Amino acid sequence: MELRADVAARLKDFLGPRLSVAAADRAHHAASESFHRGPPPDAVAWPEDADEVARVVTICAAAGIPVIPWGTGTSLEGHALALRGGVTLDLSRMARVVEVRAGDMQASVQPGLTREALNTELRATGLFFPVDPGANASLGGMAATRASGTTAVRYGTMRSNVLGLQVVLADGRIIRTGTRAAKSSAGYDLTALFLGSEGTLGIITELTLRLHGQPEEVSAAVCAFADLHRAVECVAAVVQSGIPMARIEFVDAATARAFNLHSLSALPETPHLMVEFHGSAGRVREDAASFGELAAEFGATGFDWAVSAEDRARLWRMRHGAYNACRALRPGATGVVTDVCVPMSHLAAAVAAADADIRAAGLIGPMVGHVGDGNFHAQILVDPDDADEVAAARRIAVRMAERALAVGGTITGEHGIGIGKRGLMAAEHGEAWQVMGAIKAALDPGDILNPGKLVPDRN
Amino acid sequence: MELRADVAARLKDFLGPRLSVAAADRAHHAASESFHRGPPPDAVAWPEDADEVARVVTICAAAGIPVIPWGTGTSLEGHALALRGGVTLDLSRMARVVEVRAGDMQASVQPGLTREALNTELRATGLFFPVDPGANASLGGMAATRASGTTAVRYGTMRSNVLGLQVVLADGRIIRTGTRAAKSSAGYDLTALFLGSEGTLGIITELTLRLHGQPEEVSAAVCAFADLHRAVECVAAVVQSGIPMARIEFVDAATARAFNLHSLSALPETPHLMVEFHGSAGRVREDAASFGELAAEFGATGFDWAVSAEDRARLWRMRHGAYNACRALRPGATGVVTDVCVPMSHLAAAVAAADADIRAAGLIGPMVGHVGDGNFHAQILVDPDDADEVAAARRIAVRMAERALAVGGTITGEHGIGIGKRGLMAAEHGEAWQVMGAIKAALDPGDILNPGKLVPDRN
Ligand SMILES: Cc1cc2nc3c(=O)[nH]c(=O)nc-3n(C[C@H](O)[C@H](O)[C@H](O)COP(=O)(O)OP(=O)(O)OC[C@H]3O[C@@H](n4cnc5c(N)ncnc54)[C@H](O)[C@@H]3O)c2cc1C
Ligand SMILES: Cc1cc2nc3c(=O)[nH]c(=O)nc-3n(C[C@H](O)[C@H](O)[C@H](O)COP(=O)(O)OP(=O)(O)OC[C@H]3O[C@@H](n4cnc5c(N)ncnc54)[C@H](O)[C@@H]3O)c2cc1C
Repeated sequence: MELRADVAARLKDFLGPRLSVAAADRAHHAASESFHRGPPPDAVAWPEDADEVARVVTICAAAGIPVIPWGTGTSLEGHALALRGGVTLDLSRMARVVEVRAGDMQASVQPGLTREALNTELRATGLFFPVDPGANASLGGMAATRASGTTAVRYGTMRSNVLGLQVVLADGRIIRTGTRAAKSSAGYDLTALFLGSEGTLGIITELTLRLHGQPEEVSAAVCAFADLHRAVECVAAVVQSGIPMARIEFVDAATARAFNLHSLSALPETPHLMVEFHGSAGRVREDAASFGELAAEFGATGFDWAVSAEDRARLWRMRHGAYNACRALRPGATGVVTDVCVPMSHLAAAVAAADADIRAAGLIGPMVGHVGDGNFHAQILVDPDDADEVAAARRIAVRMAERALAVGGTITGEHGIGIGKRGLMAAEHGEAWQVMGAIKAALDPGDILNPGKLVPDRN
Repeated sequence: MELRADVAARLKDFLGPRLSVAAADRAHHAASESFHRGPPPDAVAWPEDADEVARVVTICAAAGIPVIPWGTGTSLEGHALALRGGVTLDLSRMARVVEVRAGDMQASVQPGLTREALNTELRATGLFFPVDPGANASLGGMAATRASGTTAVRYGTMRSNVLGLQVVLADGRIIRTGTRAAKSSAGYDLTALFLGSEGTLGIITELTLRLHGQPEEVSAAVCAFADLHRAVECVAAVVQSGIPMARIEFVDAATARAFNLHSLSALPETPHLMVEFHGSAGRVREDAASFGELAAEFGATGFDWAVSAEDRARLWRMRHGAYNACRALRPGATGVVTDVCVPMSHLAAAVAAADADIRAAGLIGPMVGHVGDGNFHAQILVDPDDADEVAAARRIAVRMAERALAVGGTITGEHGIGIGKRGLMAAEHGEAWQVMGAIKAALDPGDILNPGKLVPDRN
């Protein structure tokens, strides 16, 4: 469907060159980081404030045209693809830090700001924003997917680090949710409802974020385990022990190999844990020592401590580069990335079963995990043009999800649903999925916000 | 309105003696801990499982009869009063621990279980459930009010300690929300939506709770400050410093006096902080020392360390007894309890302004606060039969709420809305309050679940 000329004209009227129907702009917003592809949107708009967002939504709503918010496009399940055409609302020009309230350990930011840009701006304040998906995603996109990352085990996910939102609703109304207080019992938790709603309930135009003090002291390490089982069992023991881990990341043997090839590291090609401790000098020393003792009981060896800031940066750059490093294990391949999260007591079995499935299929599928939360990913490397291979990888992904559900886990710990996981929503939620549909229908009766995603199809 | 005979008969049919229309049972459920009173419900039902809850709801929904869930009735704003008659669903017979999964640090419980009963059952596991409103409330009621308490500064509120729910909807459907995984990005956060919904969206029939390891070492202390301002400024500094406080409670001079009269303590009659540290022996020692140094900078004196478990129990029994101790400052009086929560940088001014207001009105209004969260309460003591006094106290409460809103805070940090705060919802939420109404209408079109509460009246 092409954008009706009268609608385009009305949008152009106030957006000027910030509305584009150029093929290149539309194609850019039809791609994604993963193997998912969608039709291009009919147009791309770059609004500069909440009022412009509201005007776009109002005009599109009246004409029944879909509106799809877009942060940085790093989501892994085709979340921001324009399945039914319409206008993609690219929020990259709304990327300001609105206000830092250091005394309250809070910042108000626009949704297109990336987490790295925010932390650069915060550096001098002694504060930081902890949630860190590997990608340099936008804070609006992270909110909309309820993202987390390596530090969630200590600082929580977006769920615990967003205090409030400004949101443009499907009818163009602009609301505020939450407050600047640390907690509130004043009615339905609309902030939580919009977090993870993937652009289907409203467009986030501002976020109030909870900041944390930069730790006085940081210490990080990597250590090796003889096998996957012992590495994961060690994590469960560490979590139970209550040692306040700032990060505890699992990487399997294949990922260690990818690091060696890509980052010129020289890790033994076995499973590893990468850990970090935050606190005062005394606390960090004690925590690190407690961890070291416990890990030794599980046979950990080759402790390599990253003491200097540069060493630590190198360590976490390596971890955050896992996606690309692993992709390079098979040139030309695309990753089918899985994302289950299970209760801790089921983690070792879940990782082992995934590993067995991938081997049985004769595929390469390196695994990494935010294992302190019970969350892990396999990145199954496939030739995107080989339909059989893609299908085999997706079957493995579905089996991982089903196994997670069987033990009370979830089909997605942090990446979200997009188009890739929608077929599994009924299996996870049962009748509650219909409740999500009822909420969507109440807030977006015209079904114009990122339609075809997350909730059941309307009857 | 009396319960229609045919409806009563249908309920009696499967509830037998667990349905009562006796005046005493109805009157018991028309009272509350605070000065709020409501009409009695037409009947009280004591269901024993989710299926019975669903049957009650289905029958009442068909007849348009309100259903009001009731935990232990300790809510402070008349939350569970049957404003429009109907059936009060007393959940006290659904009070089982369904399952403890110690390895996953989780428990599944029925909603009528109280927090103290849960912790008694958990004792041998080395785990505990941290959320502790002063009252021995039901976990269902705590979930429904998004309760917190003294330990929220460390362990979070109900929002972060409930992983999932089983809920009976207004049409009798039974759904499950959330999972047993530590986090999930699978669609709308229905768990968070039901938390704090005060019985207006569904009846919680089971909760999956996050448990925490009993700390290896605990140490607590109370210390005195020359004035209110310095005590509260000290809290802000402690929070900023990142010392991991397990509890940091403010009590004002009037409360200290109440403690002395009631608990035979011998505190100087000045403001105090009551603090607690959890962790390994080394960490607790270091945290306590860091706190002591910082507090000394704000002139803290008279440190009294509660080292033994009994001393600590006595300390927190005193704190949790503040409500009754303060009430005894004026025999026969009832407390109008306020509950604002503000950003940390505004806390000292907010407490001082409330104090000034209470003095100006010539009333006694002791103050306590979970100040690590920016949350504090005044308990304004009034003669419940003196309408002028009650009105004066309520005016002070409204002014406190308005001042909280003016600095970005909330009208209720933890108690919730009930009937006492509904008039302030529009001021806090603006247009977002209408969104809450739209969600209520979508999930409870017949307006039978705790009607007349929380959301705007229907047009
Ligand atoms: C290498 C790599 C590593 C990754 N690691 C992690 C990880 O560790 N943890 C993790 O959680 N994720 C991870 N991801 C996934 C991705 O980074 C996250 O999902 C991220 O939150 C997406 O943000 P974005 O700005 O790119 O959003 P987009 O992809 O642009 O959009 C995501 C969804 O949010 C919606 N949206 C975007 N902005 C708004 C807004 N302002 N208002 C309303 N809706 C909006 C979109 O419509 C879409 O549905 C990784 C991705 C890559 C490529
Ligand atoms: C002395 C004292 C001190 C207090 N201190 C604190 C404090 O520090 N922090 C704090 O947060 N609160 C505090 N409170 C308030 C009160 O204890 C809490 O609000 C508590 O959560 C109420 O639980 P309840 O079981 O008594 O609920 P009830 O009063 O029975 O009900 C409260 C609301 O929840 C609904 N409800 C109850 N059970 C369910 C269910 N299963 N499903 C759906 N809805 C349900 C009811 O309809 C009602 O709307 C205090 C109260 C007192 C008297």
